[in-house]
Amino acid sequence: MKDKIAVYPGTFDPITNGHLNIIERAAKTFDILYISVLNNSSKKPLFSLTERMELIKEATDHLPNVLVESSAGLLVDYAKEKSAHAVIRGLRAVSDFEYELQIAAMNRTLDPELETFFMMTSPNYSFLSSSIVREVASYGGNVTELVPAVVDRALKAKYHKE
Amino acid sequence: MKDKIAVYPGTFDPITNGHLNIIERAAKTFDILYISVLNNSSKKPLFSLTERMELIKEATDHLPNVLVESSAGLLVDYAKEKSAHAVIRGLRAVSDFEYELQIAAMNRTLDPELETFFMMTSPNYSFLSSSIVREVASYGGNVTELVPAVVDRALKAKYHKE
Amino acid sequence: MKDKIAVYPGTFDPITNGHLNIIERAAKTFDILYISVLNNSSKKPLFSLTERMELIKEATDHLPNVLVESSAGLLVDYAKEKSAHAVIRGLRAVSDFEYELQIAAMNRTLDPELETFFMMTSPNYSFLSSSIVREVASYGGNVTELVPAVVDRALKAKYHKE
Amino acid sequence: MKDKIAVYPGTFDPITNGHLNIIERAAKTFDILYISVLNNSSKKPLFSLTERMELIKEATDHLPNVLVESSAGLLVDYAKEKSAHAVIRGLRAVSDFEYELQIAAMNRTLDPELETFFMMTSPNYSFLSSSIVREVASYGGNVTELVPAVVDRALKAKYHKE
Amino acid sequence: MKDKIAVYPGTFDPITNGHLNIIERAAKTFDILYISVLNNSSKKPLFSLTERMELIKEATDHLPNVLVESSAGLLVDYAKEKSAHAVIRGLRAVSDFEYELQIAAMNRTLDPELETFFMMTSPNYSFLSSSIVREVASYGGNVTELVPAVVDRALKAKYHKE
Amino acid sequence: MKDKIAVYPGTFDPITNGHLNIIERAAKTFDILYISVLNNSSKKPLFSLTERMELIKEATDHLPNVLVESSAGLLVDYAKEKSAHAVIRGLRAVSDFEYELQIAAMNRTLDPELETFFMMTSPNYSFLSSSIVREVASYGGNVTELVPAVVDRALKAKYHKE
Repeated sequence: MKDKIAVYPGTFDPITNGHLNIIERAAKTFDILYISVLNNSSKKPLFSLTERMELIKEATDHLPNVLVESSAGLLVDYAKEKSAHAVIRGLRAVSDFEYELQIAAMNRTLDPELETFFMMTSPNYSFLSSSIVREVASYGGNVTELVPAVVDRALKAKYHKE
Repeated sequence: MKDKIAVYPGTFDPITNGHLNIIERAAKTFDILYISVLNNSSKKPLFSLTERMELIKEATDHLPNVLVESSAGLLVDYAKEKSAHAVIRGLRAVSDFEYELQIAAMNRTLDPELETFFMMTSPNYSFLSSSIVREVASYGGNVTELVPAVVDRALKAKYHKE
Repeated sequence: MKDKIAVYPGTFDPITNGHLNIIERAAKTFDILYISVLNNSSKKPLFSLTERMELIKEATDHLPNVLVESSAGLLVDYAKEKSAHAVIRGLRAVSDFEYELQIAAMNRTLDPELETFFMMTSPNYSFLSSSIVREVASYGGNVTELVPAVVDRALKAKYHKE
Repeated sequence: MKDKIAVYPGTFDPITNGHLNIIERAAKTFDILYISVLNNSSKKPLFSLTERMELIKEATDHLPNVLVESSAGLLVDYAKEKSAHAVIRGLRAVSDFEYELQIAAMNRTLDPELETFFMMTSPNYSFLSSSIVREVASYGGNVTELVPAVVDRALKAKYHKE
Repeated sequence: MKDKIAVYPGTFDPITNGHLNIIERAAKTFDILYISVLNNSSKKPLFSLTERMELIKEATDHLPNVLVESSAGLLVDYAKEKSAHAVIRGLRAVSDFEYELQIAAMNRTLDPELETFFMMTSPNYSFLSSSIVREVASYGGNVTELVPAVVDRALKAKYHKE
Repeated sequence: MKDKIAVYPGTFDPITNGHLNIIERAAKTFDILYISVLNNSSKKPLFSLTERMELIKEATDHLPNVLVESSAGLLVDYAKEKSAHAVIRGLRAVSDFEYELQIAAMNRTLDPELETFFMMTSPNYSFLSSSIVREVASYGGNVTELVPAVVDRALKAKYHKE
């Protein structure tokens, strides 16, 4: 049997426990899981591409079949380069859902062989997003239970520079 | 590597081209795909359990790793019996989405090791359902392009008995 | 120029002020508007087909280009018989929306020449439905401002037979 | 200051931990909270009205300002009888949301002084409903963490009669 | 009995009749209602913080238990400072709903004692938002029936400087 | 009979096959269809107003009753100027739907005589938007089947300047 290879793309600014939950579950089904960190030049992230990749690497250190990479162009091109036949996306809410179906349909038009699998975000994390984490942390709110420990420390360093 | 085994549960009264599209795509990612036909005693189907299974078998005859079975109890029990670690569900619309997330969350509560993967129904078939097919066919409407040929013939036999 | 002919199909059990609002507005755009009352044998209506048609006729008496008819088969067949090229549907909520798109897509598959136009239910009536009117009236609640006067009287007669 | 009195209406067939979570939180804000158990003659419940009320009473025994009653007519009439000026409803998903807004709008039309307050179901219970609990329990699935202990025992007694 | 104290947070740029309708209704249930005007430094509002607060004060002059304040940090910190145990939010549409549930869940994580109550925006105002009011007013459209009179005058002054 | 005149407003940056599909279908029902290209000074489009209008003109060259114009102010004012009594909008997804109902309700408040008709985007194009086309084209992805040929050429010229 051939290896089952999947890509989990995202901005991860920063990775949350919701992302980590999806990664841990997807890593059980696929033989190799690439975390593809988008280098989106038009949005100005809180954490640099290098920082975001480093945080994910530390948070997924216990998952040997998870590889963290950056990517800039079309997802379908990246997936082909990695011999991946599957894309993983987490689903939270209705707005997610509509947008995600739109992207998945476009990707199918660009490459019918690339399949998108949606996984349900755990109900505990259904309200979590990187942007809400950034906002709460910027006001000094406690996000310890919402992000990996390494991200919690990085957020405190960014915003409070103790 | 262990076999990747998935279950695609449903009533399939009858199987449509939308279902078949999901089955063909899931059969590429998983080593074995069980089509689990629900024997729901409370709803009175148009096609009997035996008829529904037979129609699916004929429509998926070209897919050697697809197996058609019936099931009556909890999905998590059926999946355990088959050593399946994944459930496949097609997603069409918002109402689907909410209901599907609810079922998936309940199944995760009952068995945290069983993962549900959602696949996007092809846009062409996003409006298709077994019930709308039955309704149109009952009025003599043409559903030839919406269902496998064997189902088209079966619907004509049910409703018009020529 | 050819006449613009549209069909507004529904069960109308009974017609509400929300329906009437859609009818009055559609009657301005189309030269002829057929109200097509569905004779759905599987659901048991509160008002008989004849009663429902009579209530609509009285409520639309001031609209000379509105014609009330019954229909039993496929909408596309009925529309063709009437030389109608348009179907009118009112939209209220998300669940409406998904279901309505599904029906419209199916009708386009059956007859690509028949176009469905959706009209927004007036915000005042966005919560109104025939079933909620029936339920409130059955408990003796006041629906005077929610239905045409002739329907208000008919509901009182049905439920209270004073 | 006048007492703040609220009504929490529902079928509660049976009460779940999701309901209980809403009740406990609402009981903090309102001085008196009436749980109004609907005696809906058209649906055939699993538990009788008396059984449903008894289960709620036992599950809310620790909440002195919660009173359990039955109700059959219009909610606005019941609320007036109890001098309640507020209705509490739990919100889970989109379909809930649309339906709940519809009911709330109708109730405002019937009595503009009666206000509906929606509370967010805890994310942990966002997938819970009485019907999914009944279904899982009917197949012998474990619902211990989803319902009060007294309901868990009652479900086992109903379905398995040990 | 202790006072029931609630906070209604928002940008209010400017306050509309939809906001005012929520405020008037919430002020009946709670003993004290704080309107907390967000001083969001990242968005550039049409009206300054001082102007927005002044407009709300004039529009709520008839409501003695409504207090207008500004706030900059986390809502949960502001609420604690005011001894408020409730947050009021208006709900209009699906996108509102998802976003609002997300915020409410985050606030519950940060302070489990702070409860969010959602109130249904009156159907008449279900399409109203501060941004659509600003857009229409900027083109000279008539918004007299959509905002308090004091806001109508302020918008005319801003855009047309007569 | 009076001419039936409709307006189809949008940014069209650039026109897609989804837009074209709506235009072709609306042009069958209405005697004159104005494509009103919004000159939104706050957003910076990829194609200039003149370019966007030219691309639509070429793509709709086969439709004699379609006229392409620009517009800057309120839609209701533009429609009145053109003696149009109808606005056409395409509907794709839930977020569309909510936003579109909001705009339509505001327009009805501003001019009760102007009616908005929603048409369902063809399922094949339900995932298409100008912004996703721009994004894919910017990375050199193939959009040949998603836009008129003239737009495909213009996108290649914009992004790759061969």
